Amino acid sequence: MYSVTVRGHMMIAHSLTGDVFGPAQRLHGATYVVDVEFRRPALDANGIVVDIGRATDALNALLAELSYRNLDAEPSFKGKNTTTEFLAKEVFNRLVAAIARGDVGSGARAIESLRVTLHESHLASASFDGRV
Amino acid sequence: MYSVTVRGHMMIAHSLTGDVFGPAQRLHGATYVVDVEFRRPALDANGIVVDIGRATDALNALLAELSYRNLDAEPSFKGKNTTTEFLAKEVFNRLVAAIARGDVGSGARAIESLRVTLHESHLASASFDGRV
Amino acid sequence: MYSVTVRGHMMIAHSLTGDVFGPAQRLHGATYVVDVEFRRPALDANGIVVDIGRATDALNALLAELSYRNLDAEPSFKGKNTTTEFLAKEVFNRLVAAIARGDVGSGARAIESLRVTLHESHLASASFDGRV
Amino acid sequence: MYSVTVRGHMMIAHSLTGDVFGPAQRLHGATYVVDVEFRRPALDANGIVVDIGRATDALNALLAELSYRNLDAEPSFKGKNTTTEFLAKEVFNRLVAAIARGDVGSGARAIESLRVTLHESHLASASFDGRV
Amino acid sequence: MYSVTVRGHMMIAHSLTGDVFGPAQRLHGATYVVDVEFRRPALDANGIVVDIGRATDALNALLAELSYRNLDAEPSFKGKNTTTEFLAKEVFNRLVAAIARGDVGSGARAIESLRVTLHESHLASASFDGRV
Amino acid sequence: MYSVTVRGHMMIAHSLTGDVFGPAQRLHGATYVVDVEFRRPALDANGIVVDIGRATDALNALLAELSYRNLDAEPSFKGKNTTTEFLAKEVFNRLVAAIARGDVGSGARAIESLRVTLHESHLASASFDGRV
Repeated sequence: MYSVTVRGHMMIAHSLTGDVFGPAQRLHGATYVVDVEFRRPALDANGIVVDIGRATDALNALLAELSYRNLDAEPSFKGKNTTTEFLAKEVFNRLVAAIARGDVGSGARAIESLRVTLHESHLASASFDGRV
Repeated sequence: MYSVTVRGHMMIAHSLTGDVFGPAQRLHGATYVVDVEFRRPALDANGIVVDIGRATDALNALLAELSYRNLDAEPSFKGKNTTTEFLAKEVFNRLVAAIARGDVGSGARAIESLRVTLHESHLASASFDGRV
Repeated sequence: MYSVTVRGHMMIAHSLTGDVFGPAQRLHGATYVVDVEFRRPALDANGIVVDIGRATDALNALLAELSYRNLDAEPSFKGKNTTTEFLAKEVFNRLVAAIARGDVGSGARAIESLRVTLHESHLASASFDGRV
Repeated sequence: MYSVTVRGHMMIAHSLTGDVFGPAQRLHGATYVVDVEFRRPALDANGIVVDIGRATDALNALLAELSYRNLDAEPSFKGKNTTTEFLAKEVFNRLVAAIARGDVGSGARAIESLRVTLHESHLASASFDGRV
Repeated sequence: MYSVTVRGHMMIAHSLTGDVFGPAQRLHGATYVVDVEFRRPALDANGIVVDIGRATDALNALLAELSYRNLDAEPSFKGKNTTTEFLAKEVFNRLVAAIARGDVGSGARAIESLRVTLHESHLASASFDGRV
Repeated sequence: MYSVTVRGHMMIAHSLTGDVFGPAQRLHGATYVVDVEFRRPALDANGIVVDIGRATDALNALLAELSYRNLDAEPSFKGKNTTTEFLAKEVFNRLVAAIARGDVGSGARAIESLRVTLHESHLASASFDGRV
């Protein structure tokens, strides 16, 4: 299996609901450094998994829609806990849609699976890994 | 599959038995920076894989039992080569026990698998990955 | 010159005032990974610059006062732009006070200067470096 | 599953053919920081996956054959696009041959699979993961 | 003293002249991950050292002029050894010119000194540090 | 000012004397990832601060004299606390001697100052910075 991984980041505010979150129940924020791994079993005719430039652009475009925002105020997250895990899946969903639209190049439709990792600090991260 | 990864570290002395180890047959030591990835197929009602705070506390508690020690003098490691690989499995075993005891929260019993990685330098690491 | 550097982090929400900040004028947030370098020209009788454990505890204590908060709502930052640079100086000021109170050990009063660095992402950081 | 990962690097010049590569169609270069993960289900009698010293030497030996070269001028790469993905597979192939020759120790023949990752910058990497 | 550091990168081919360079006398290449630290004694009215966005754009613009090129073929480097040290100074010179032109904002003219670091691998880097 | 930084590492056992060290009074160990920065105001005729290969070899040679050892049993450290700070100075002293002997090349005698940093974990490091 071949893979390519690209990196981006977003900076958001949010609060989390539930005693388990302790002080993170208060409005606070995070920088998420986001790694996305694209996987496919064979390379395309150019010898690549995906165009790194287009993959980076597609990632940055979707991160820009989330970044510099208070996620508590986003209608699409109403009633949801925007945990690091939840956001890893959200970035995954949006990338799958971007691939389907052809934003990552027509060849990217051969991508079989993605792994999205959000690093919230030097001590903790969360991932979602699934088939496209 | 969702996952959460937390980081801790320990500082130990030990020696290794066998010609293959060269100068590491002498008493020496290591800092192990320890990453533990917890995996489960679905999030709990709070939207998390595991409580990052409790996971970190459980990891630090077991690392404190190993850290600042000469592993050559630990009865439980008598006759064992405490290689990085062996210690990755040891941390795995202790975490599985901690999860079973409920130390990582009752929800953590839904964890399906763990990956434990010990970084011994900027150049080398070892992992154990297995089902809980 | 000798130095010791310890690391902590905080996660905050805030917004910034001024056209120069573009989308960061909206309420958003950041994880700041914080490095503090303590410097002195000679070691103490124990052979150290500062007790790494106490230095880390003092840093974590002051970061806990800032973390998991919306800095826009903190009275002490009223009318201030809590930029990364500003917060580096704020952490510096609070550490100087902690040293003066003896929180970092009585020997830490021999510290001549500090450098505080806040990493806001994998791409940017800010520092304040000054005499104690 | 157990694994051990070792790191090396190479510095090469090359150009890439195809509109998708944009400015990388010009002769340019890269530092590839190379991580190789060796995996096997059980440890050997010494308690290791592989001798880290020999694994590192074998990796460095094959990287030395590629490094400080213009890959466009290497006969074995004639007509190939030496993308990061392609080179990850090339390093994989050469390591599999080294293992078969016994360069990584006779025990290394129990290695089941390898993952080779080439980091081309702080923002992008490519991997090949396969059975030996 | 306050500072802000931003990161970019470039990928170049070159060869070095002189026995001291060993195999690096052959045409090869490098990824340089470039950190630039901007320093000034006081913050501006917005509470910043420099606009991180503009500083990053100015750095990326000058790195784009150097990147994806064979430096041996650049007229401006004719007869020069484009060592990592030399290139650190070259990036410094171009940033000083960019600041003078106002590319980093009019306030950036208060910058007193810069430190430019080029990381050529996980094992080596070079810097130039000087007054603007 | 120009500088070049190279990296190596050592793995040692030791214990520390003094209540301030808490559990580190027990025999334990550490991996020290060691960065050495060499500084001089002007480049030599080859356009370098120091030959990176020779600097790395000289660093590795002195680290090999310390590594895979119990520092408590080394006669030269008798009665000394081999703290991270102390060891940073020890590496500094040995490098200054290596430079004086010509081990880093005759040109390296123009080096004005060195900064030696020992990273003991992902959370703490110590440095000694001084004139040659």
